[in-house]
Amino acid sequence: MKYYLGVDLGGTNIAAGVVDEYFRIIAKHSIPTLAGRSVDEISSDLAKISRHVISQAGLKVSDFTSWGIGMPSCLNPKTGRLVHSNNMGWRNVLILDTLGKHIDLPIIIENDANCAALGEALNGAARDFNNAVLITLGTGVGGGLILDRKIYSGADHMGGELGHIKMVYNGATCTCGQKGCFEAYASATALIRQTQEAMKLHPKSIMNELSGGLEKVTGRTAFDAARKGDTAALGVVDQYAEYIACGLSSLITIFRPDVIIIGGGISNEGGYLLDRINDKILMNTFGALECGVPPVIKAQLGNDAGIIGAAMLELCSAMRKV
Amino acid sequence: MKYYLGVDLGGTNIAAGVVDEYFRIIAKHSIPTLAGRSVDEISSDLAKISRHVISQAGLKVSDFTSWGIGMPSCLNPKTGRLVHSNNMGWRNVLILDTLGKHIDLPIIIENDANCAALGEALNGAARDFNNAVLITLGTGVGGGLILDRKIYSGADHMGGELGHIKMVYNGATCTCGQKGCFEAYASATALIRQTQEAMKLHPKSIMNELSGGLEKVTGRTAFDAARKGDTAALGVVDQYAEYIACGLSSLITIFRPDVIIIGGGISNEGGYLLDRINDKILMNTFGALECGVPPVIKAQLGNDAGIIGAAMLELCSAMRKV
Repeated sequence: MKYYLGVDLGGTNIAAGVVDEYFRIIAKHSIPTLAGRSVDEISSDLAKISRHVISQAGLKVSDFTSWGIGMPSCLNPKTGRLVHSNNMGWRNVLILDTLGKHIDLPIIIENDANCAALGEALNGAARDFNNAVLITLGTGVGGGLILDRKIYSGADHMGGELGHIKMVYNGATCTCGQKGCFEAYASATALIRQTQEAMKLHPKSIMNELSGGLEKVTGRTAFDAARKGDTAALGVVDQYAEYIACGLSSLITIFRPDVIIIGGGISNEGGYLLDRINDKILMNTFGALECGVPPVIKAQLGNDAGIIGAAMLELCSAMRKV
Repeated sequence: MKYYLGVDLGGTNIAAGVVDEYFRIIAKHSIPTLAGRSVDEISSDLAKISRHVISQAGLKVSDFTSWGIGMPSCLNPKTGRLVHSNNMGWRNVLILDTLGKHIDLPIIIENDANCAALGEALNGAARDFNNAVLITLGTGVGGGLILDRKIYSGADHMGGELGHIKMVYNGATCTCGQKGCFEAYASATALIRQTQEAMKLHPKSIMNELSGGLEKVTGRTAFDAARKGDTAALGVVDQYAEYIACGLSSLITIFRPDVIIIGGGISNEGGYLLDRINDKILMNTFGALECGVPPVIKAQLGNDAGIIGAAMLELCSAMRKV
């Protein structure tokens, strides 16, 4: 049996795993990212957790032929330079050099959302589809595109940044510095902001009590309150679903994928969110009533998708094929 | 020499041509579309003008092996049903049956903007590029995608509708019935609306005099007045360029194409418009300063692109390859 080593560097956690050739995780572990630290500090942690899962699996570094890493970043494949990673606060660093100091394996880096899409395409919710759009709703909004069973990341492999398509002309400022990006309305961060705004407008909403105050709002606050019938919270959830549907409608209009997969922490709201998104897509997409629209479904692999995708880059990145 | 027959059905004109195997038009003719007429009336005109150019070229119908037609429509390739064509006012018609009554040749239909993109890719502004986005600014906004030298029209060939990505959340109503589409801000129709609004706000603007009144405004009014230094008109042109840049920025963020080509009537404003678009894309696109952005250039073939693309569908549609 051949094994693959993958790490998923997220805004909140670093997760590493050893994956077998049937795309099953046989060992995994995760630690907090503590974002804001330097490339060197984080690289050191990536190596540490990777060695940990290798030993957990009863293997050694020399049993592997690559170190696959998914990270929230835009990497120039020609130069190996990480152009920017908003959620990590990095810009313009030669990441491959830094990582290479820590483990002696060929390194393959991909955008984290592309890794998650690859994982779901290999062994998850998109397993039976040729064309899929994956959106992860977390600290940011990640996007992964599977076209004809291949990762698609644009002509120069710096595209496919679905969280940064413009959705609200001249709208809210995004972490990328631009205005009105999909991410600025559909991320968990955006949902928290929308929840806080509604709490200020509706001081009697149970969101205030449930959350324990503005500072303690999470991505779950509005959903929890809405499920208890709170009108203001229902408004937040409906509006949030409409923002997501609006961004997805552009992607449907371009790609007409077979399926749309929603991952990331917020996807755990399940049908309560997804049913609303499906309804709103039908009402808000070009030609939806005449041509139909793809179903929006929940990712199946959770955080494992990113680990599996990163691990399998060795096979699926070189070939650019799932 | 083998010859190809192509027709470009636009909102304003129907243009037909005979194209040789070097993608050169050897005969062409155009007549007004008189949009609003029935599928049968327009189909009859498509046949009439096609016979006209065939005879102009000294050929006969039997010298051809297909009738390639580009039209502003969403066609379901599985059923041959035209799902909708907003600018023609058609919905849900079996267009192939109607057309087939008029000329006895195999018919190949593609979206008109895809045909224009194919023409530009074969023998025009995108000749030297593998990945191109073409946008036509006319009655509507057409979009054509060339990825790896092939027409890309989505998983079910009903995608690639670049004019209908959402740009302004909850914005102006589009011809498609949706709100905030790129087309609703970047078409000539939208520019005329924007010009009229500015004229009402600025009664002393020379746009009023130049146009001869609100009812007579064209897509050129604001440009003509801006070139004479009219401040209100400059505002219209700048805002219009920013809308176009905003829509294009989403496409760059997804596709990172090698080049963006602007066609359609408005593209005749040349550098006066394109320079503004290029500047605004640089300021308004995710990662533009770090990763660079593709140049926005003018289409080279004008209305011929659509004729050439339609004619060459015989070779390039079956193979889905340019």
